[in-house]
Parts: sequence; structure tokens; C-alpha cells
Amino acid sequence: MKEVVIGFLGCGNVGGGVWNLLEGFSKDLEHRDSLKLRVKKVLVRDVNKARSCAVPQELLTTQVDEVIGDPEISIVVEFMGGEQPATEYMLRALRSGKTVVTANKVAVALNWHRLQAAAQERNVGLYYEASVCGAIPIIETLNHALRANRVYNLMGIINGTTNYILSRMYERGENYADVLEDAKRLGLAEPNPASDVEGYDAAYKLSIMASLAFHARVPFSKVYVEGITHLTAMDIACGKEMGYVLKLLALGKREDDTIEVRVHPTFIPESHPLAQVNGSFNAVYLHGHACKEMMLQGRGAGDMPTASAVVGDIIHAALAEVHVHPTFANTPEADPTLTFDDNWESKYFIRLSAEDRPGVLEKIAGWLAKENVSIATMMQKGRVDQGRVPLIVVTHAAPEHAMQAALAAFDAEICTVESMIRVEE
Amino acid sequence: MKEVVIGFLGCGNVGGGVWNLLEGFSKDLEHRDSLKLRVKKVLVRDVNKARSCAVPQELLTTQVDEVIGDPEISIVVEFMGGEQPATEYMLRALRSGKTVVTANKVAVALNWHRLQAAAQERNVGLYYEASVCGAIPIIETLNHALRANRVYNLMGIINGTTNYILSRMYERGENYADVLEDAKRLGLAEPNPASDVEGYDAAYKLSIMASLAFHARVPFSKVYVEGITHLTAMDIACGKEMGYVLKLLALGKREDDTIEVRVHPTFIPESHPLAQVNGSFNAVYLHGHACKEMMLQGRGAGDMPTASAVVGDIIHAALAEVHVHPTFANTPEADPTLTFDDNWESKYFIRLSAEDRPGVLEKIAGWLAKENVSIATMMQKGRVDQGRVPLIVVTHAAPEHAMQAALAAFDAEICTVESMIRVEE
Repeated sequence: MKEVVIGFLGCGNVGGGVWNLLEGFSKDLEHRDSLKLRVKKVLVRDVNKARSCAVPQELLTTQVDEVIGDPEISIVVEFMGGEQPATEYMLRALRSGKTVVTANKVAVALNWHRLQAAAQERNVGLYYEASVCGAIPIIETLNHALRANRVYNLMGIINGTTNYILSRMYERGENYADVLEDAKRLGLAEPNPASDVEGYDAAYKLSIMASLAFHARVPFSKVYVEGITHLTAMDIACGKEMGYVLKLLALGKREDDTIEVRVHPTFIPESHPLAQVNGSFNAVYLHGHACKEMMLQGRGAGDMPTASAVVGDIIHAALAEVHVHPTFANTPEADPTLTFDDNWESKYFIRLSAEDRPGVLEKIAGWLAKENVSIATMMQKGRVDQGRVPLIVVTHAAPEHAMQAALAAFDAEICTVESMIRVEE
Repeated sequence: MKEVVIGFLGCGNVGGGVWNLLEGFSKDLEHRDSLKLRVKKVLVRDVNKARSCAVPQELLTTQVDEVIGDPEISIVVEFMGGEQPATEYMLRALRSGKTVVTANKVAVALNWHRLQAAAQERNVGLYYEASVCGAIPIIETLNHALRANRVYNLMGIINGTTNYILSRMYERGENYADVLEDAKRLGLAEPNPASDVEGYDAAYKLSIMASLAFHARVPFSKVYVEGITHLTAMDIACGKEMGYVLKLLALGKREDDTIEVRVHPTFIPESHPLAQVNGSFNAVYLHGHACKEMMLQGRGAGDMPTASAVVGDIIHAALAEVHVHPTFANTPEADPTLTFDDNWESKYFIRLSAEDRPGVLEKIAGWLAKENVSIATMMQKGRVDQGRVPLIVVTHAAPEHAMQAALAAFDAEICTVESMIRVEE
């Protein structure tokens, strides 16, 4: 029986889930892997706070050195979240020869190069399966099973909060603000949901996934980010009528040395495999040159699903004789031989409010045509109100810059752009 | 740059795919992993046969010893299929200190214990990701990402031929025999499709998956197997009207020390994630105590998707410093502390042809009630023909043995059982 001693940095929801999972699973682990995992110290902010797990009081400490300075502890598991002080603590743990397992997407996305350099210097491990999509084994799949592939397309629903909100808006025609309030009440949205609803949470995860998928550093700063706060029940209803489902997608594409990475609300056909992924589920759909289409779907958040990934990594780290690191992650910057393209091609759904008089449709078509954006569908949606007609236009594929230029040229006296949503097939 | 020398046993479709993938991917591999994979010898039956890949003539041999007896070759990749001589060749390769990568579900399912014992004795690797569901990383996920889980439920569409046939029967109302002929013509069914359509292919794969999921040897002989050859367009149409989709499912369940493993046609609700998996796609849906629901979906067959898994294993094997083996696979028999239960609970869809006279429905209800099988729905489906009424009965959940006993008691003079299909929710 091998015994491995562990320290926790943080003990909130995920930490509590990991504690509970380790407790309930210890017999299985001894039986299956001849492995005993013992948690020796748990860093918390307040030793007297009520917790979701029964960590004995004597394990709690408010002194980080009692965890990362303990020579008996060989694996440090970090659940603090946020860039700092988590990154500094992990660096110190790695530099003192401890393997680190983390669920922290922000720290990994922003400081991968520093963390990995520290890990390599001491030949210890750095594991982060739980940082992207909870229990879904996307990190392992990109690192291992797909290693004989050039992945050229990633599409993910990788934020549960926004998917819950959009699913309800789609299914019940509810408004964004109402569903958000409900999601907060149900614990499906944070009291301050900005990072989720503005798309940043998905963008951190996309930076990590795209780096592994494309075998190249894809910095967070290269990800285009647009959230869901401006979406209306009207847009979703119009899309639905046309056979589209609205999702906050994280998109990554690589063609030769050009990479596109973007997070934004996206209409997809209701027949697309991702269209069926509802509520708080997450899924990643990808294409590789050998594996072809593949989709991994599951619980992207929640104490136990996240703990499933964390403890999977802990077991792996505890049994590994050698820790392997991806080669590209050592730099903070993108590979200079790569181009990050923000002028991607997409179809566009635009909702307009136009003056109700002859010649207006011609004007609209003209503004679009001037930038070579051609119209696939144009229709009136709803009644004339205060002299304005509501119109929906769906374009053929066009470059993003052309589309932005065309919309900027709309004369607001004649026609205002109420919303613009990208469409992927 | 590390160079690893490889030998092939067999060079049919999958072998050709692996050759082509290795050729086209060698630069990526050198760049990403500083790894050079060189194929030195390829065992074939006929050196003059035309092939789907450009293996140089001088690499071909009809002498197995030129592959497994070559001291320079450190990884032997087996694509022969079938139990023998593949198993003997792999055993000889392992015993001479070579790692084996195989796509052979039959050999692994039937001779896992012998193969693994030989691998452990020489501290070499045995890899078989490609033996189950082509490119889908189910073996790796069960072995690694889910290692902190007690998996208690597996449901898979793991045979592409039957899923193609059933999808077409469902979508277009076609007959089994017609679609099978078409599938043969399109290369989606073998000239002799017995192993696919009778469920054996899925049963071999289920034996491997269930063993890994349940951390216990699940012998092939314990799998209940029923194929799709008896299914009619009528059954599928009746189920469709009731909101069911028909799939050939591989089902594995574990509750405490009781395991159920079965392959049979199954109605599932059209809202089930597996109901959307159509054509030649494969998918595995599972539940773990920590990860909760998860589904992996992708290409379960085809030269390149299978080669994706094979080459993924080859790269892993070439770079691994230590080869890890599951602990339970060393025995040919099931763990004696486990019970394999063939008296599972299910709902049942039965199609009957009954005499058109008063009192018959009462009779039918009586035969079922005698075995405590209770009826959820009973309805007439279609017109009276030659004095016989077509009836559909869907039961509440009942034990398999009770259902079988009830059906055996039907008096054929009064009512014949045209079909019986299990229903999972």
C-alpha cells in the first residue's frame, strides 16, 4: 500500500466535494490501486466557518506555509480560484518539489508558462483536468487519445450558468433578467455572475483547450469575448422559428498557421449535436483529421463532478512515475509563426427596426452589398409600431470586418440595428 | 529525437489507415513529441495483393517471425482480427519483450488474462483503445479520468452497422432485409454481417468496457446477446408513434456486487441523449457516483478513426516509461464474489396478434398478471386481418424471468406473440 500525503489550498464547495469524495472512496482506492491518500493540512481563511464537509478542526490552518512548507506533503491541491494568491502559492509548492493539482482555470490560462516551468524544473507534476468542464475528460482526451490528430475545429458549450439561462429562454420564452434572478436563487449563478454571463469564464477555458488542441500557446488575450447580457427573448424566438437554437459557444479553429478563438452567442441549427445540450450540461464538439467528429458531454460544474476530475488527477499524480508536460506551454506569448485572425467568416442574424416606407429595404440591402455581404433571408417579424417595421435579416457567410463595417454604415434615422448574432452551421 | 521501430501484424483496412496516418503525421510527431516511428516489417497473407496504402514491397513478409522475432522492433501492432492466430502471435510478441497495440476486440475480450499476464511478466505494454468504438476515447476515460468513480451504469451504441440499419428503418420505415443489402453495397456492412447484426461484436466490446468500468472481470460468456435480425418495420413504426427510438444497446449495470451485462434491441425515449446518435456513429452514455451523467460520441469505425486510436496508443506506448495494467484482468473467470444477474428489470413492448372476439383482452391481461407483470398501455394497432387483431402492450417494469414465463404461457390459438422488445427510460 502506497501512502501519499496531500495538502489543500482552500476548502469551499469544490474542496468540500473533494474531501467527501476522498472519504467515501478510500476503500475502493485501497482495493483498486493499493493507494492511501491522506489529507494532512487544509488552508482556509477562517477556521471557524461552517463547511460542507467534515474536515477535522485540527487539519485547518490559515498559514499557507503549513501546507506548502510541510515536507511530508507531496501533492498540493488548489481550489482557491482567481489568479492571485493562487498562482503564487502554486509556484511556491512546485518550487519546493510538490506536485500541484488545480481546478483553477484563471491561474492556468494566465500563468501556465510560469507554473509549468516551475514544475519542469523540479520534475513534478501539474494537473488541471478540473479547470475545464468539470468531470468531462477533455484535457486528457486532447493530451492523450487525440495525440495522433491535427484538431482543426473545437466548438464548446463550456459554461453551465449561461447554458442554463439560454436553455430556459429558448424553452419558455423568458427574459434574460428574470431567468438570471432565478438562476441565482437556485445556486446556478453566482451572486456576482459577471465572469459567466460576460463570457470570461468560457474564454479562460477556451484558452486552455485551444492551446492543447492546436499544440500552440493560445493566450487568453487573443480570445474574442462577447457575453449574453444583451440577448432578448425576441431574438431567441425569431431564431427558433427559423430552426436555430441560441448557445454561448466557445469556438476554436485552426487552418495551417492561422488560429481563430472566440466566445460569443451563436445560433446553431436545431439538428446540431450541441443544440441538444441543455441546462447546466457542458459539451465539447471537435473535429480531428483522423478521428473525425467527436463530442464529449457531461456535468461541467458542481461539487462532485468537479471533484471527480480533481481526484482523478490526484490518483494519477500519486501513481505516476514520470510527469509529462506539453511542450508549447512554456511561453506566455503566442508562437510568432502563428496568426490569430479576428476577421473570421460567419453567417449573421440581424434584427432591425426600420422606417415603414418604400425604398427602405433597398437601402438596407445596399449598405450590406457595399461591403459584399449578401442576404440569404429577409423578413418582417411582427407589426409596424410607431412607424417602425421589425425586420430579420440572415446573411450568407461574410467576413466579420465587412459585417461590422456594413452595420456601422446603417443610417439610424432610417434603420437601427437592434441585435446581431453570429450563426454557425 | 527518439526512434521507435514498429512491426505490423496484418495490413487490411485498419492497417492501411494506420500506415497512411503515420506517414502523413510524421512531421507533426517529430515536432510535438520528438518522436520518430519507423515501420520495419508488415506481416501479410499475400505480398502481391493490392493495398489501400503504399507500404514498400520490401517491408512485406508472410513470415510472422520476421516481425515478432526482430530484436529491433519494440512495438507490434496487430490488425488481423479474430481470436486466432492473432492471440498466439500477440502472446509471442509480448513474451519476447515487445509492447503490443491491438484493435482486436475478440482477442482482448476472450484472452485478456493471458495477454496481460504475458505483458506483466516482461514489463511491456498492452494497449487496446481501438478495440472498442474506434476513435472514441472510452478505454482511456474509464481507466484514467473516471478512476475516482464507481460507475454503476453504462449504455452504449457500440456497433455502427446495426445503428446505421436501425436509423434508416426508423427514419424511412424501410425493412431490415432491404437496408442490410444497401448497407453491404455501401460498405457499411460486411459481406457476412452475422457478428454485427447478431450482436456479438457489441458483446465483445461490452465485455471489455464493463470490465474496466466495474473494475472486475466481466467475461464475454456472461453477456446476454440478442441481435436485430428479427426486427420489423412495424415494430419500429409502433414504437415511434409512442415516442420511442429503437437502438441496439449494450447495457452494463452494477449495484453493489451484482452485475448485469446485455446486448439487445431496446426502445429508448426520443428525448434520451442516445436517441440522437444516428447512422454509423457510436456513443457511450454512463453514470458514475461522482461524475454523474457523461456521454462520449464519435466515429466508432472506419479506417482513419480507428487509426486515430491505434496511433494514439502507439505514441503513448513509445513515450511511456512504465506500462500500467488493470488489476482485475488477470483471471479468465469472473470474480466469485460477484453475481451476474440475468433476471434484470425492464419495461417491455410486446406486439401481439389476437383472436378478434370478446374476452381475449382479459385472457392476455390474465397471463401477464399471473406473473405479476402489469400493463401500462394496451392498444389496437391496425385493422383486423383474417380474424386476428394486432395489439401493442407496454408493461410496467418487471423482472425478465417473469416476463419470459408470462409469454411462454400465452395460448397460441388465442394470441401469438409477434415480438418482444425491452424498453429503457
